[in-house]
Order: sequence, then structure tokens, then C-alpha cells
Amino acid sequence: MIILGIDPGLTCTGWGVVAKSGSRLSHVANGQIRTDAKAGMAERLVELDAALTDVILHHRPDAGAVEEVFVNVNPQSTLKLGQARGVAMLSVARGGLQVAEYSTKLVKKAIVGTGRAEKAQVQAMLKILLPGVKLAGEDAADALAVAITHANMLGSHR
Amino acid sequence: MIILGIDPGLTCTGWGVVAKSGSRLSHVANGQIRTDAKAGMAERLVELDAALTDVILHHRPDAGAVEEVFVNVNPQSTLKLGQARGVAMLSVARGGLQVAEYSTKLVKKAIVGTGRAEKAQVQAMLKILLPGVKLAGEDAADALAVAITHANMLGSHR
Repeated sequence: MIILGIDPGLTCTGWGVVAKSGSRLSHVANGQIRTDAKAGMAERLVELDAALTDVILHHRPDAGAVEEVFVNVNPQSTLKLGQARGVAMLSVARGGLQVAEYSTKLVKKAIVGTGRAEKAQVQAMLKILLPGVKLAGEDAADALAVAITHANMLGSHR
Repeated sequence: MIILGIDPGLTCTGWGVVAKSGSRLSHVANGQIRTDAKAGMAERLVELDAALTDVILHHRPDAGAVEEVFVNVNPQSTLKLGQARGVAMLSVARGGLQVAEYSTKLVKKAIVGTGRAEKAQVQAMLKILLPGVKLAGEDAADALAVAITHANMLGSHR
């Protein structure tokens, strides 16, 4: 089973793909999608959708999960984040995939064992859970953590 | 020239299409897209995208404009609105259309002459500007007002 995790953002969206075979997890790929800050909003959303659609067509995930975004105190930032998140969810769901949502806290708990873990702790655990993984960046790491969380949740339902 | 205006929202998205020939404006169509409140977020965004894409394929607009959303005091509402707005902008822009953005205030000013106009005043002016128009609802009316604002702006650039 191939699982895609996404940590959405307008400036940078992280994505991570893991494979699950029985109870074994392995790393497939991870990356980050940056949109051109000088472009208009609609153009940036089209860029994000096209890049995510490429990832989906290339890796053909069986399941997808998106991080529940941190709701910023600044309403304009929240709105921008919402726009990127809406596009990310659409890109995944348009092909018929279910899209699960996990809070950052739950993801940290699933990976490190505590919802208050630091980013560095999550990244250290990723390197243990997915031996040999090279992280494209912080957002890609968060996306892989979301994918693993979903893989574990799917396992526990069976 | 065919112009599509959109007033985005997760529960209800209004759309309106007007035709501009020289300085003459006429009504083409307007409507509202409601998504199933019981469905998951990703599913609702797919519904919205599919319905808007139908409108675009049917009316083949030459230009598109989206209302700048009211940034709610509730961050969760702002996030939801952002998600719907992101999908609406993507649906329009994916086909290569430019997407203009106008604030509610600017739209009211363009239609009624004052940024503080009431919704009823905007709707009364729509009926004068687009004789015979039947409004599908408040959001459709707002979307037509956005389309007319964009039509006027496009005219003034030439």
C-alpha cells in the first residue's frame, strides 16, 4: 500500500510517500513544492495543483492524508493557508482518494510518543523509522510524518 | 466578451456570467453551488470544483473575477472559506484564465456608487443593469456584481 502525506502551505508544501507491506514501512520519496511569491494568487494555486498532481500520477498512492494546519492569529495568513490547503485536498481527492486529516499534535504523538515533541525529535524518529531517508526539508519531513501516522492508523483498523 | 464572477463559500458559492459587447452589458446566467454539509471537507471541495468546472465549460468565459472574502473573526471559519476560495480560484485559473480579485467594498462602489451600500441596493441596481435578470439568490447576486465590476474595469483599461 502506498500512502501520500501532505503538509500544505502557499509558499512551501511538503509531500512524502511511504509504502506499507504488512507491518513494514519503507520510504518511497519526499519533496517540497515552492510557488513563485511574485506570481498572482490564482497562478500560485495552479502551480501547486500541477506539481501535486505530478506527484500523485508518478507515485499512484492508495491513500492520502493532510496535516491539519496551524490556525494563525493573522486572518490574512489563515486565509492564504486555507487556499493552499483547499487546493492540496482537492488535488488528492479528485482522483477518488479518501483524504484523512491529522492534527500536528496527533502526528507528533504517533511518531515520537508525545504531542509536544520538537521538530528535531520528529526528524530523528523519521530517520529511524525510514532507514536511509534523505529529507528534502522541514515541510517534507512533516509530510512524511503525516503519511506514517496514516499508515499506522490504517493498520490499526484492520 | 463573456465574464464570470464568483462569490466563494464552502456552504454556498455564487456564480454569475455576463456578456459585454462594446459598452453594452447583458445577463447570461447565474446560480448557486451548495455542497453537502454532511460530506467530508475533501469531498465538498471536489463537488465545488466539479460544479464550477461545469459552469466554465458551459459558458466559456474570457475573463474571471472572484470576490475578496470577508475575513471572519473566527479562524476556523476563515480557514474553511480560504479552502473554498482556493478551489474556486483554481477552477477558473486552471483553464488559463486570469483571475481578478475585488473587495466587497469596491464591488458595491462600482455597482451602487458607495462602498457602504446594502445588499438590497446592489440587487436593485443589478435588476436595472441587467434587465429581466432572475437572481438565484444572494450569493449569485454578489457574483453577478463582481462580474459587472470586472467588465467595467476591463472596459476602462481599453
